[in-house]
Amino acid sequence: MALHSDPQIATRALIPDVEDFPADIQEKIAEVTEKSGFTPNVFRAIAARPEEWRAFMMMHDSLMDRQTPGLSKADREMIVVATSAQNDCLYCVIAHGAIARIRSKNPRIADQLAIDWRKAELDERMQVVIDVAVKLAVRPAEVTDADQQRLRDAGLSDEDVADVGAIVSFFAMSNRLAHWGGLQPNHEFYAMGREPRAKA
Amino acid sequence: MALHSDPQIATRALIPDVEDFPADIQEKIAEVTEKSGFTPNVFRAIAARPEEWRAFMMMHDSLMDRQTPGLSKADREMIVVATSAQNDCLYCVIAHGAIARIRSKNPRIADQLAIDWRKAELDERMQVVIDVAVKLAVRPAEVTDADQQRLRDAGLSDEDVADVGAIVSFFAMSNRLAHWGGLQPNHEFYAMGREPRAKA
Amino acid sequence: MALHSDPQIATRALIPDVEDFPADIQEKIAEVTEKSGFTPNVFRAIAARPEEWRAFMMMHDSLMDRQTPGLSKADREMIVVATSAQNDCLYCVIAHGAIARIRSKNPRIADQLAIDWRKAELDERMQVVIDVAVKLAVRPAEVTDADQQRLRDAGLSDEDVADVGAIVSFFAMSNRLAHWGGLQPNHEFYAMGREPRAKA
Amino acid sequence: MALHSDPQIATRALIPDVEDFPADIQEKIAEVTEKSGFTPNVFRAIAARPEEWRAFMMMHDSLMDRQTPGLSKADREMIVVATSAQNDCLYCVIAHGAIARIRSKNPRIADQLAIDWRKAELDERMQVVIDVAVKLAVRPAEVTDADQQRLRDAGLSDEDVADVGAIVSFFAMSNRLAHWGGLQPNHEFYAMGREPRAKA
Amino acid sequence: MALHSDPQIATRALIPDVEDFPADIQEKIAEVTEKSGFTPNVFRAIAARPEEWRAFMMMHDSLMDRQTPGLSKADREMIVVATSAQNDCLYCVIAHGAIARIRSKNPRIADQLAIDWRKAELDERMQVVIDVAVKLAVRPAEVTDADQQRLRDAGLSDEDVADVGAIVSFFAMSNRLAHWGGLQPNHEFYAMGREPRAKA
Amino acid sequence: MALHSDPQIATRALIPDVEDFPADIQEKIAEVTEKSGFTPNVFRAIAARPEEWRAFMMMHDSLMDRQTPGLSKADREMIVVATSAQNDCLYCVIAHGAIARIRSKNPRIADQLAIDWRKAELDERMQVVIDVAVKLAVRPAEVTDADQQRLRDAGLSDEDVADVGAIVSFFAMSNRLAHWGGLQPNHEFYAMGREPRAKA
Repeated sequence: MALHSDPQIATRALIPDVEDFPADIQEKIAEVTEKSGFTPNVFRAIAARPEEWRAFMMMHDSLMDRQTPGLSKADREMIVVATSAQNDCLYCVIAHGAIARIRSKNPRIADQLAIDWRKAELDERMQVVIDVAVKLAVRPAEVTDADQQRLRDAGLSDEDVADVGAIVSFFAMSNRLAHWGGLQPNHEFYAMGREPRAKA
Repeated sequence: MALHSDPQIATRALIPDVEDFPADIQEKIAEVTEKSGFTPNVFRAIAARPEEWRAFMMMHDSLMDRQTPGLSKADREMIVVATSAQNDCLYCVIAHGAIARIRSKNPRIADQLAIDWRKAELDERMQVVIDVAVKLAVRPAEVTDADQQRLRDAGLSDEDVADVGAIVSFFAMSNRLAHWGGLQPNHEFYAMGREPRAKA
Repeated sequence: MALHSDPQIATRALIPDVEDFPADIQEKIAEVTEKSGFTPNVFRAIAARPEEWRAFMMMHDSLMDRQTPGLSKADREMIVVATSAQNDCLYCVIAHGAIARIRSKNPRIADQLAIDWRKAELDERMQVVIDVAVKLAVRPAEVTDADQQRLRDAGLSDEDVADVGAIVSFFAMSNRLAHWGGLQPNHEFYAMGREPRAKA
Repeated sequence: MALHSDPQIATRALIPDVEDFPADIQEKIAEVTEKSGFTPNVFRAIAARPEEWRAFMMMHDSLMDRQTPGLSKADREMIVVATSAQNDCLYCVIAHGAIARIRSKNPRIADQLAIDWRKAELDERMQVVIDVAVKLAVRPAEVTDADQQRLRDAGLSDEDVADVGAIVSFFAMSNRLAHWGGLQPNHEFYAMGREPRAKA
Repeated sequence: MALHSDPQIATRALIPDVEDFPADIQEKIAEVTEKSGFTPNVFRAIAARPEEWRAFMMMHDSLMDRQTPGLSKADREMIVVATSAQNDCLYCVIAHGAIARIRSKNPRIADQLAIDWRKAELDERMQVVIDVAVKLAVRPAEVTDADQQRLRDAGLSDEDVADVGAIVSFFAMSNRLAHWGGLQPNHEFYAMGREPRAKA
Repeated sequence: MALHSDPQIATRALIPDVEDFPADIQEKIAEVTEKSGFTPNVFRAIAARPEEWRAFMMMHDSLMDRQTPGLSKADREMIVVATSAQNDCLYCVIAHGAIARIRSKNPRIADQLAIDWRKAELDERMQVVIDVAVKLAVRPAEVTDADQQRLRDAGLSDEDVADVGAIVSFFAMSNRLAHWGGLQPNHEFYAMGREPRAKA
């Protein structure tokens, strides 16, 4: 399998040619490209290792493509933006910031979460969620039962609480993979969802 | 699916009854229990979510069950111990510390890596590996091309370099999952590999 | 002078009615409003203290409305964005991020500087400038002669070097004033300069 | 305008000859020299930039030469000493420490505030003021409405609360300007106000 | 007095020959060697300075060989392990970890205290003791009367409270002496007390 | 033995009546009182525990009352001031600052070392000494052979190098004892050595 480098995608990763990707990965990439209009760089940057690619996407989709009364898809993206910003992760903040803007229909929310989540346009429930999520990201050993109880008191189910922990944890991994590989956000992400849109 | 809590396994996780685990997970657990003589708690603590369980184990095995000239299985466990200690992760340090002692045949190495890796009994190559791994764990945004070059100069292949990054990243996730769930190490791990053994 | 609060402008500041502003301040505000199409919130948020308002704007304009071969107006805005991000200052990052995008004609640069300046699209000169500027913002006592020499070696004049120090220092003040007052960015800033434009 | 360096004044600043200063600056310097018996170095160290000099002094005097029931001139100097010590600013701690000793008639207060304000000879009101001021200096994003309410509960007016924020912010700037320029305190400051004096 | 280096004992210390030790030190070393079955390295590593050796041991024994209702010998060793781990002190964690295991009859306690004392098998009293001890070790200026009251509320006498402070302080010194000298734990310590034993 | 509290001496310590002190301690206190003109508070604050009092003073005098070509008594006091300032220790900075001023005949040196040792009036040798000493005080695990070599290259003997480590370590203990006890400096210390004196 020939590997090449492409600093537009990732400054420190070796990437296979698309035609060398396994069929299932090619298929999934075609699908996301169709839907987004472009291929998010992460899909290609980690494709040299198909096994890990599959595990990564399986875990990602399981956590992020879920909508519950206590934790919407938009909420999940906001957790990603706020905690990835604590790790200075350019790719994750820009890519998931775009999705957070679109899903929340708020064109300002991603920038606010990335710069100072304390002053972001969040309702009370999400203020608690982000507060606890950031704590797990930055000072994980200090998490207590009381932190999780705050989430339940804010209306999250046991399953939602588990999701908060798993999302923060998954992106603690993603942020470091992105830094290690020098992953670059696609230019498209920066501009997506910047237009104000009426709430559904 | 009935869930219960078991503070011997994890103080903040809900766990299914073993007979409720999907067949493939039951099988894998039986296998590891046969091999280890007991079931490491992580296998049960995250079993309420089979999809994530499978992705987690797939990624773990892909990274940790690999032996290369530049990065042995013992070396990989040492990376886990040193970086998990930076996150104060009791489960990961104790469980992987046991494996690190056994695989390296050095009964002191895990304690040294957990307390002060700078003074551990490491050869020059592994001193560089741990130094860079700890940097990625703790200050990921500051990783540079030069850090990865240090690994190559120490004898690691491009693939090994990618492994270092992926192992550190995977355990950045695992450490936080363990803290979130209040995961407890099995008592067996504390004592394993404490006897000095002749190097093969 | 009647003061009122307006959480759209600043959640923790008392603000006079525009007609109560001194004539010179009214005039300057009219001018900037004409030019921008809206009144940046900072102009009203600190207007209860005309003396400080004047000093603040005098110092700001002296530092930011200067174009030299070694430090363009765009470069100066980039320093503001990168160092204000270290202080999590929502207003300064968003407002000056907009100006940085417009002046640099790069719609991505502000987000990059705010999230991880190490991976921003900067030439070598500006990498040095931002590196030293961030050091002064975050660890001021550790600044050395060598840091300033790096700036000169990168092509900055003595006057430019003094400007770097003064800009970083001025925004160390501005960031804290903004946090203290709970200053909110005007919604307009978030969207400005997001369209790619040809370099002049 | 000829510039020279004078390490007794500032190790990293270029300073004009006194006769090259603009008339208004010369006049103000003559005035302060008359009053103090010597020229505080800051007046000369930043004189190469008259516009900023004027803005700096205008803002300084507006904040520091004010006496209110809730925040005396001595109290204001104490805020400067405690927060400048957090930034390791030799000039600000020494120069304003001298003034704090004189205005408070307590020869020990400056050293106490600089070394450990928690153990300084402060009444309850000033303990709250210094606690909140240090928070704004060091962790500005974490300031909350409750912090400002603590000041009001301690007897400060709305205007005083704004002053606390502005003083801390102004010296966040001054401290960095001093570090950048390598500003040295005049020897006279070290010894001033060391004699115990009867309270008025 | 001839001095030599012995990296098995301390990589950065000069050590006299045993026969050059003063008689009282030789005697004390013989005694501890008799009791332990080996000579703990600290006894030889600091023996080049008999005066300090004597003061060090006098203070150590006074603090550690005391058993009170509120603070047993085992409890004292646990304080040493938890606070020395905060300073990454390999010698102190390993050597006193061995004693802590033996005295508490809990083969897991030292590892737990070293890695994450928050999740260690501690009763409520010892959770408070370790919490306050770690605070004194890491953020000593922030200790308050309330911290000491928590100890009293947990059942410690005034004398016990003084002991907690003195033990933490003494090991703040020991940890740094150990780092400075590159002190190595004897191999024996790693394995001691690993067997579960019935509580008396 | 009756114990009392005296907030002028220490806000959180219980102190015996002077006539209850053991004879040797009374004698030593009389001696230092005779010499200084007052009794430094530390001598009384820790006198409730004679054994530790004796060990403390024995170690202190052994380290501080030594004059070598590479490390004068004044130099030793400067190490104390700079490292104690890192721990915000009011008593140690004020008391040893007074002695540092007197022994160095420089009335400014203690304030400089306490506020920003990087800008203190130090020769090159002492710049290295303080730099390394502060590292041991604050980040002890990171000390390397190279740090100690820097001291030797600056003219310190092996014995001096050991002294630097022991002084820093001893005051890591003293600083914490002082914080724990709420130890207050005698008022006399603040004013001592403030007059410029001719160098011998």
